[in-house]
Amino acid sequence: MAAKTTILDMNRFDGANLDALDAHKRSLVERRAALGNGYRLFYRDPIEIVRGSGSHVFDEHGTDYLDAYNNVVSVGHCHPHVVEAVSRQAATLNTHTRYLHETILDYSEALLAKLPAQIDRITYQCTGSEANDLAIRIARNYTGARGIIVTREAYHGNTDLVSGFSPSIGMGQELSPSCGLLPTPDTHIHGDEAIGDFIVARLRERIAAMRADGIGFAGLLVDSIFSSDGIFPGKAGWLNKVADAVHEEGGLIIADEVQPGFCRTGEAFWGFARHGFVPDIVTMGKPMANGIACSATAARHEILDVFTAKIPYFNTFAGNPVAMAAAKATLEVMDDEDLTGNASRIGSMFVSQLEGLAVDHPAIADVRGAGLYIGVEFDDPATGDPLSVETLELIEQMRRRHVLTSNCGSYGNILKIRTPLVFSAADVDRYMTALQDSLAAIGI
Amino acid sequence: MAAKTTILDMNRFDGANLDALDAHKRSLVERRAALGNGYRLFYRDPIEIVRGSGSHVFDEHGTDYLDAYNNVVSVGHCHPHVVEAVSRQAATLNTHTRYLHETILDYSEALLAKLPAQIDRITYQCTGSEANDLAIRIARNYTGARGIIVTREAYHGNTDLVSGFSPSIGMGQELSPSCGLLPTPDTHIHGDEAIGDFIVARLRERIAAMRADGIGFAGLLVDSIFSSDGIFPGKAGWLNKVADAVHEEGGLIIADEVQPGFCRTGEAFWGFARHGFVPDIVTMGKPMANGIACSATAARHEILDVFTAKIPYFNTFAGNPVAMAAAKATLEVMDDEDLTGNASRIGSMFVSQLEGLAVDHPAIADVRGAGLYIGVEFDDPATGDPLSVETLELIEQMRRRHVLTSNCGSYGNILKIRTPLVFSAADVDRYMTALQDSLAAIGI
Repeated sequence: MAAKTTILDMNRFDGANLDALDAHKRSLVERRAALGNGYRLFYRDPIEIVRGSGSHVFDEHGTDYLDAYNNVVSVGHCHPHVVEAVSRQAATLNTHTRYLHETILDYSEALLAKLPAQIDRITYQCTGSEANDLAIRIARNYTGARGIIVTREAYHGNTDLVSGFSPSIGMGQELSPSCGLLPTPDTHIHGDEAIGDFIVARLRERIAAMRADGIGFAGLLVDSIFSSDGIFPGKAGWLNKVADAVHEEGGLIIADEVQPGFCRTGEAFWGFARHGFVPDIVTMGKPMANGIACSATAARHEILDVFTAKIPYFNTFAGNPVAMAAAKATLEVMDDEDLTGNASRIGSMFVSQLEGLAVDHPAIADVRGAGLYIGVEFDDPATGDPLSVETLELIEQMRRRHVLTSNCGSYGNILKIRTPLVFSAADVDRYMTALQDSLAAIGI
Repeated sequence: MAAKTTILDMNRFDGANLDALDAHKRSLVERRAALGNGYRLFYRDPIEIVRGSGSHVFDEHGTDYLDAYNNVVSVGHCHPHVVEAVSRQAATLNTHTRYLHETILDYSEALLAKLPAQIDRITYQCTGSEANDLAIRIARNYTGARGIIVTREAYHGNTDLVSGFSPSIGMGQELSPSCGLLPTPDTHIHGDEAIGDFIVARLRERIAAMRADGIGFAGLLVDSIFSSDGIFPGKAGWLNKVADAVHEEGGLIIADEVQPGFCRTGEAFWGFARHGFVPDIVTMGKPMANGIACSATAARHEILDVFTAKIPYFNTFAGNPVAMAAAKATLEVMDDEDLTGNASRIGSMFVSQLEGLAVDHPAIADVRGAGLYIGVEFDDPATGDPLSVETLELIEQMRRRHVLTSNCGSYGNILKIRTPLVFSAADVDRYMTALQDSLAAIGI
């Protein structure tokens, strides 16, 4: 088995390539030194993006790139309905939530209507990290326990607390002493039928082990599409028995919908709803306001009340009129353009074409996805070892063909296809052509 | 001495007043139940604000309120230069920092030029809480120690980590086991001349006590205007000996500029620069982009590098083109309109008029401030006890006269005047008239 890839080994510009860049780009890259060494640029030849529209972005020369990576501007780059809402509200008022304002109420009611009836409260933050940070605190206050279980390549955010429950950050980041790890629900290894019982068994073992260490079980924090683990949606419904087990053990389920929420899976509005279980807390972020910072934590009132009775929480920018106008407009586009339906239709077409490609490319070991979140696993056909280097090279080849896509998973051998929700059939064709050519160039 | 006021006892709508509201407002308040019990509304008769311009906001009837509270839209509500920048960028592109984009570089260079040369790196987050959360982690990684010292009524944010260093949140929130508390630098009690030595002595004691408990000293996290402590800017320069002591003890200074930064104090662009010392890490937030979520952590490169070498940090919305366009436009307005100068001129005029008022009002025990951050302390002239109830009533009286202002401090007896930076002489006149009338109405 190849060595595990860390985030640092993934798609990134290497300073050693600096002299290969043209003078303009070299200058921009050099100026980025002001941002510190933590700012990772994508690609050996980084891209300057100056304009976006729908599923497309354009560089400084006007070259059109197909964006098959971006789930933040999920209703499309610069969607006019969202742009208009942001511009209008920015020119009218942008203040905090200590005064009455109708937009936050209109939006909250529309969003709660998309959640199960039991989830009847919603609070706003600015980032998915803040939402997960708050959700863990709410769960701990309610249960009186500290232990939170996540999957072994999970990523739930960047605050001190949430980083301790995000093993995919890598070994430099210490995990929380109250973090329990589940294996990745790898359906390619374990199969769709067995995965539920397998994960339930590991969950019970992990809870018992934590209890033996004096750590009570507060809950499971889960991205139901397991994106950073390598994209393992599995068959709709398999997570329900895990949810039941969490509740039997007295824990809460925090559904982290930053990745699978807001139409993404094509089968339901939320990732958890695709399975059918009802979580206790739901966190959301990235696609919520099409790029304007906005996130939220929704919960059952009896759970949230325990927290708010003890701890006053205020978040200056959260729920402000501009963020709410952007979020409301984004939700309207999702409904008006039936983007759940589009994710379903285009996603199915995409998977079919990828499966067709796999027939002639034995290095494609697995194609899996839900809606417009698709993973393509590349393994050595002879040994089953992950083709990490080749997958990274594939990303670079796609970039040369002006298609922006990425990779993920423990070994970086999963092609990650996560397009704007407005991806079209023509966009799929363009992606597939670039992919075929890129595979041919690499010879896999 | 009166019982300490908690945040929960301060300016807030009480549900018992619901029936006193008109049907429209009652409906809005009732609909806010969807946000949970944590959403505090200001005032017994809450205000619906629908429009803002400069230092003024307008309710649903078009009534003009003077905003003497808001330091987020610091260059004025809906400043046309910022609105234009946000609208233009939202219509052009809004994506993340993994691609090259010039605005983040232009802005970073302009902002770093305002910082001491030693502070040569800047990283972006979305909220002041995220910036302080990251700053503490950076300081801990660099020093290898965990102990952070703050003042006893400090507020530094709402993440799990930062809440543990924000005693003003109140007793429901446990402080971090590695949090050390300094007394409030109360110049009204200790005097301007003695305050530096007093705080240095307490700092040394606190560091020694933490070390005796096995907690190393990582640094001091400080808002140099001590806003939530009750607004104690003191005389420019007094904090320098505290900074020296922190460095002698091997700790770092994190200057939390969320409140005093960006022209606020009228004496310098930054709160720490008003004193003269050079911090190791500088965090910023609220006023940075005039209401669009944007925050930052600036640091010496040798300090930041230790963190980034170990831990990959990415923040999806942070530094995105819309946030950077808003921040850049805000900074341009600050320079073009000389808002540091305005804060100085208008702030001095304000303080003079307040001091004049104090001559006839013995309940005004102290007037103190720097630029457009002014505190007016109300104590019983006979006993020196804080006039907490009266100060809260004063806020309500001011609201009836259509002036939005607030209170702060351990006992809530400090009138907090924190206006947009574009406050005018006419605005001061209006504030003073409302204040005189309100004092007369209360009879203090």
